[in-house]
Amino acid sequence: MPDVGPAVGIVMGSDSDWPVMRQAAEAVAEFGVSFEADVVSAHRMPAEMIEYGSRAAGCGLKVIIAGAGGAAHLPGMLASVTPLPVIGVPVPLKYLDGMDSLLSIVQMPAGVPVATVAVGGARNAGLLAVRILAASDEGLRRRMEEFQVTLRDQAHAKGERLRAEASQLSR
Amino acid sequence: MPDVGPAVGIVMGSDSDWPVMRQAAEAVAEFGVSFEADVVSAHRMPAEMIEYGSRAAGCGLKVIIAGAGGAAHLPGMLASVTPLPVIGVPVPLKYLDGMDSLLSIVQMPAGVPVATVAVGGARNAGLLAVRILAASDEGLRRRMEEFQVTLRDQAHAKGERLRAEASQLSR
Amino acid sequence: MPDVGPAVGIVMGSDSDWPVMRQAAEAVAEFGVSFEADVVSAHRMPAEMIEYGSRAAGCGLKVIIAGAGGAAHLPGMLASVTPLPVIGVPVPLKYLDGMDSLLSIVQMPAGVPVATVAVGGARNAGLLAVRILAASDEGLRRRMEEFQVTLRDQAHAKGERLRAEASQLSR
Amino acid sequence: MPDVGPAVGIVMGSDSDWPVMRQAAEAVAEFGVSFEADVVSAHRMPAEMIEYGSRAAGCGLKVIIAGAGGAAHLPGMLASVTPLPVIGVPVPLKYLDGMDSLLSIVQMPAGVPVATVAVGGARNAGLLAVRILAASDEGLRRRMEEFQVTLRDQAHAKGERLRAEASQLSR
Amino acid sequence: MPDVGPAVGIVMGSDSDWPVMRQAAEAVAEFGVSFEADVVSAHRMPAEMIEYGSRAAGCGLKVIIAGAGGAAHLPGMLASVTPLPVIGVPVPLKYLDGMDSLLSIVQMPAGVPVATVAVGGARNAGLLAVRILAASDEGLRRRMEEFQVTLRDQAHAKGERLRAEASQLSR
Amino acid sequence: MPDVGPAVGIVMGSDSDWPVMRQAAEAVAEFGVSFEADVVSAHRMPAEMIEYGSRAAGCGLKVIIAGAGGAAHLPGMLASVTPLPVIGVPVPLKYLDGMDSLLSIVQMPAGVPVATVAVGGARNAGLLAVRILAASDEGLRRRMEEFQVTLRDQAHAKGERLRAEASQLSR
Amino acid sequence: MPDVGPAVGIVMGSDSDWPVMRQAAEAVAEFGVSFEADVVSAHRMPAEMIEYGSRAAGCGLKVIIAGAGGAAHLPGMLASVTPLPVIGVPVPLKYLDGMDSLLSIVQMPAGVPVATVAVGGARNAGLLAVRILAASDEGLRRRMEEFQVTLRDQAHAKGERLRAEASQLSR
Amino acid sequence: MPDVGPAVGIVMGSDSDWPVMRQAAEAVAEFGVSFEADVVSAHRMPAEMIEYGSRAAGCGLKVIIAGAGGAAHLPGMLASVTPLPVIGVPVPLKYLDGMDSLLSIVQMPAGVPVATVAVGGARNAGLLAVRILAASDEGLRRRMEEFQVTLRDQAHAKGERLRAEASQLSR
Repeated sequence: MPDVGPAVGIVMGSDSDWPVMRQAAEAVAEFGVSFEADVVSAHRMPAEMIEYGSRAAGCGLKVIIAGAGGAAHLPGMLASVTPLPVIGVPVPLKYLDGMDSLLSIVQMPAGVPVATVAVGGARNAGLLAVRILAASDEGLRRRMEEFQVTLRDQAHAKGERLRAEASQLSR
Repeated sequence: MPDVGPAVGIVMGSDSDWPVMRQAAEAVAEFGVSFEADVVSAHRMPAEMIEYGSRAAGCGLKVIIAGAGGAAHLPGMLASVTPLPVIGVPVPLKYLDGMDSLLSIVQMPAGVPVATVAVGGARNAGLLAVRILAASDEGLRRRMEEFQVTLRDQAHAKGERLRAEASQLSR
Repeated sequence: MPDVGPAVGIVMGSDSDWPVMRQAAEAVAEFGVSFEADVVSAHRMPAEMIEYGSRAAGCGLKVIIAGAGGAAHLPGMLASVTPLPVIGVPVPLKYLDGMDSLLSIVQMPAGVPVATVAVGGARNAGLLAVRILAASDEGLRRRMEEFQVTLRDQAHAKGERLRAEASQLSR
Repeated sequence: MPDVGPAVGIVMGSDSDWPVMRQAAEAVAEFGVSFEADVVSAHRMPAEMIEYGSRAAGCGLKVIIAGAGGAAHLPGMLASVTPLPVIGVPVPLKYLDGMDSLLSIVQMPAGVPVATVAVGGARNAGLLAVRILAASDEGLRRRMEEFQVTLRDQAHAKGERLRAEASQLSR
Repeated sequence: MPDVGPAVGIVMGSDSDWPVMRQAAEAVAEFGVSFEADVVSAHRMPAEMIEYGSRAAGCGLKVIIAGAGGAAHLPGMLASVTPLPVIGVPVPLKYLDGMDSLLSIVQMPAGVPVATVAVGGARNAGLLAVRILAASDEGLRRRMEEFQVTLRDQAHAKGERLRAEASQLSR
Repeated sequence: MPDVGPAVGIVMGSDSDWPVMRQAAEAVAEFGVSFEADVVSAHRMPAEMIEYGSRAAGCGLKVIIAGAGGAAHLPGMLASVTPLPVIGVPVPLKYLDGMDSLLSIVQMPAGVPVATVAVGGARNAGLLAVRILAASDEGLRRRMEEFQVTLRDQAHAKGERLRAEASQLSR
Repeated sequence: MPDVGPAVGIVMGSDSDWPVMRQAAEAVAEFGVSFEADVVSAHRMPAEMIEYGSRAAGCGLKVIIAGAGGAAHLPGMLASVTPLPVIGVPVPLKYLDGMDSLLSIVQMPAGVPVATVAVGGARNAGLLAVRILAASDEGLRRRMEEFQVTLRDQAHAKGERLRAEASQLSR
Repeated sequence: MPDVGPAVGIVMGSDSDWPVMRQAAEAVAEFGVSFEADVVSAHRMPAEMIEYGSRAAGCGLKVIIAGAGGAAHLPGMLASVTPLPVIGVPVPLKYLDGMDSLLSIVQMPAGVPVATVAVGGARNAGLLAVRILAASDEGLRRRMEEFQVTLRDQAHAKGERLRAEASQLSR
């Protein structure tokens, strides 16, 4: 398996999804994991989409993150042509608050799973990719544990400020 | 354009969709329109699915009817590889009453339309295919008009029976 | 069949639907297909609406595109009085994000189909009308295939820009 | 105004709606109000539907009750061609639990109201028709008040039995 | 029956509902029908609410229009203490787009109907009240018919402008 | 405060709600807490409903549990006439799976809270009533803690059986 | 039972919930009830969350109010480790209007109740906490009754202004 | 890292979830991957649940699959105490068709991802776990690719039977 390329492929149906999807890229980058990002549209370039998915494992990718909105077919179609884990990000459109995107991604038929995250939850898609890689990389797993400690400490700090502010009310 | 093959292609993600989708076939057959039916799964045989769509126009098909349930990607993916009109039938699964199927099919992005009918509305998919063919076939259009007269007459007959039954109540 | 009039009729319940529905007109015009546009309200001018639908085929129209919002009855009512294919566009209103419009249009009873597109998806309604006409017009079908190539090329160009931008992040 | 005909017209899109809609008829009959019932399908006999609505007031009808399911256009279309109050009953179909029927009936545009009752709520449609007639008929209004007393007494009796049963548990 | 008071009572749970509900008042006023408007909160002044409903028929009111949002109990509670027809207006709140208001009003149990209109559809509530009064008032009914003609004419005029605008596109 | 009567009042709109609501009674009885159960319909006996709520605190009740379905007004109306905590149980009806009941109960306006539990969650309503009473009754609180230990032990036992069964699969 | 600490604990998953949740604090403070407020995140500091819930009763807290959004686990998790009544506030996020928050909080399994209030209904959470405390505190209950009188009087005053404004329209 | 234990932990809130969740176990077993299954209830045994999650990585587990229904907190809570990838299975309950389970699992806040599959989609959860393990295990990945070929071949065989059956209709 050639392993020189990036570990995570981040793709989306249109560059208009990038403001959401770049949060996946940033999360992955925070952990020092290599990635590539591209526009791969299931509906506008289906042949290239199939090819991207079919070649992904051979190119050394370990996880694919795919974001799409509305009738969001990209994550599921990629999952059908790769044995890699595919993470789906429901991108919300102007109407329906992403409920269409969510159901189009998560309700996959038995045989072809997509690991779905929250509506607009691209950051979590990145973190999930890191967890998946960390399942076989102890160093990365330790960094994830440290990250979780940081989350806790930030919440503590927020609590401290909130307690101070709330104590004004209770007098 | 070789026109020897059938005019309507009726495809579905699994043979479990057939009890719903055969109503499309029956509607088409009632009008003497030739058709073919097949299992073409977006998720289980993506390469063949792409090929089916890509070759459809060249084989003489004029309309494709595609049924699928849950994260229903088949109609939209076919529409992305054919210039033919594609009719999507949302097949209801065990949960969510077909709302996931409906949104996965109808909410296509600009550029790639799918003509969507009601949840489980395969009969109407067949009738819509006939209307599409009839747009350039005056004989077929006359048969559609006759069919509409029949619908009216059947509704009249039902009304007659209902008036009789209801008149019992109103005494 | 007198064929001098336009091929596509684009109607809507109110002129307030025009900002959405003009995208259907623009799509049709891009392909050089003739069309007419009008306000035909199912609820405010029912007699004229019935007449519009009843005469459509005779006037040479081949496809009707009808947009409406809320309890959206126009597409279905037109479909009941014409043998032509009718495309319905769910126009979103202030509340409910077009879910009421979508269900009122797509959930037609067996016998009278409406080809429904996405909430606010008027552009796709226009493209679907072109595909329907192209089913019996090889020249138009080739133009649709060229259009699909353009979609792909635009997506490619977007991908190129995105790859450049994303590579900044991955350093 | 010729007043010899029935006061309430109860119509529905298909005789399959009768098991639900007969509860409207029974409620009206309990109050001694005359009615007629018929199949009047918006989609299968649009011309007759328009005619039914247009002639209703002239025939002496005072209220129309219309039941329909799915993309339920009958109540709203009748309301567009009559000045009479139209009561809409959302009949639930096999899927979506009547939510499509409800939204198709209740979400009418400004100008053409439909008095909508609960999903499957045909009995209340009948009672609402009686209340409307009773607004100008003091005798009928007294009967409605007596009916409301009966409802209360029945609830009382149910409470008595429940208290007895529940007291077994609390020992 | 003392008939000196107004014919229509328009009540709402809070004065914050007035911007929506005043459209009911305006519609009623356009037809020269007398009305009164008041804040009658089911939850903040339940005893007065019950009293308002109980006395309404005796005071000469013929129809009650009640608007409320969220867990909207006012229309149903009034309907339980009056034999008059009660029209419910689902007022949308900040979240859920009025779906909670709609279901709380329309889904009344058998025995106590509420005539429900669209989310935010106060104008139609006023027009429905006029139709109810017109069922026994031929003059008012004629004015409703004239109003319907006006709706049609306005739609015609809009169509004319739209045709002109659209013809620019089709060149 | 006369404290001779029961501590918890369990009321419902109809005796048809009893199969659901008796689970509240059973939960309360398991903790030895006294209760009464009755039919108190907001819509069929509004005056008695108001009286029940108004007198509840004076009769020694500490908590009211109210179940209702559809346009479920009972919990909110009782909360408007009593200072006691009111627990609302959304009883599911034949259609809409209790979503109407849930929204009608939980979406109360600011000023009048209802403590809402899950659709059909009457057992939890009983347990919540016990927790509320236990907030000022240390003995009762200890019993609640013991109950929570029992829940844990039952889950443990279920886990043991499941591990055994699953180990068959993994061989 | 040491009773020196505050009676009500108000916790939330993040300080971004504070603009909503402070309304709970203000309501509690209006009644002179002592409270504490803190950030206690189920997902970012699970161990501390468990500890907070486990120690709450021992510290003298009588009621916990917990607000969270999205997959909102805080109220239910706290309820699983304390015998105290827990009030859940569904905080709406950017998408889905709080429907996810509501269902994640209210749909608790049998055994572990959460007293759920409206989406964004933090003020009612505070008032519910007061009612719970008032169930065993006659002075506090009297203040709740006075508060309810104030609500009524405010509604009266609003009604007076509205009647004046509406009377302009009816002339 | 001690690697003697099973690679996949399959846990659920109650043994009533087992009929759904055993499909995850079977999928994992088909690939020869070792697993354990247990009842770990977030609400009935929170301390043990936290402990299970905290120790999972240290025990050699690589992936956790967690199923739960209603206010489904188990997957998200486990994800908050482990750095491993957690797959969530929304188990449908009696009401709401699993929509509550889905939203409670998928809508996790930024920082703590859960890889969510379809409502009742336990088989896909198992397959996703295999894909995750296969990301760093070439032999397992080849087996996944073979499995995908099998899916395709089965779909082909179904298509053959369907074509035969459908050809009867088209005569």
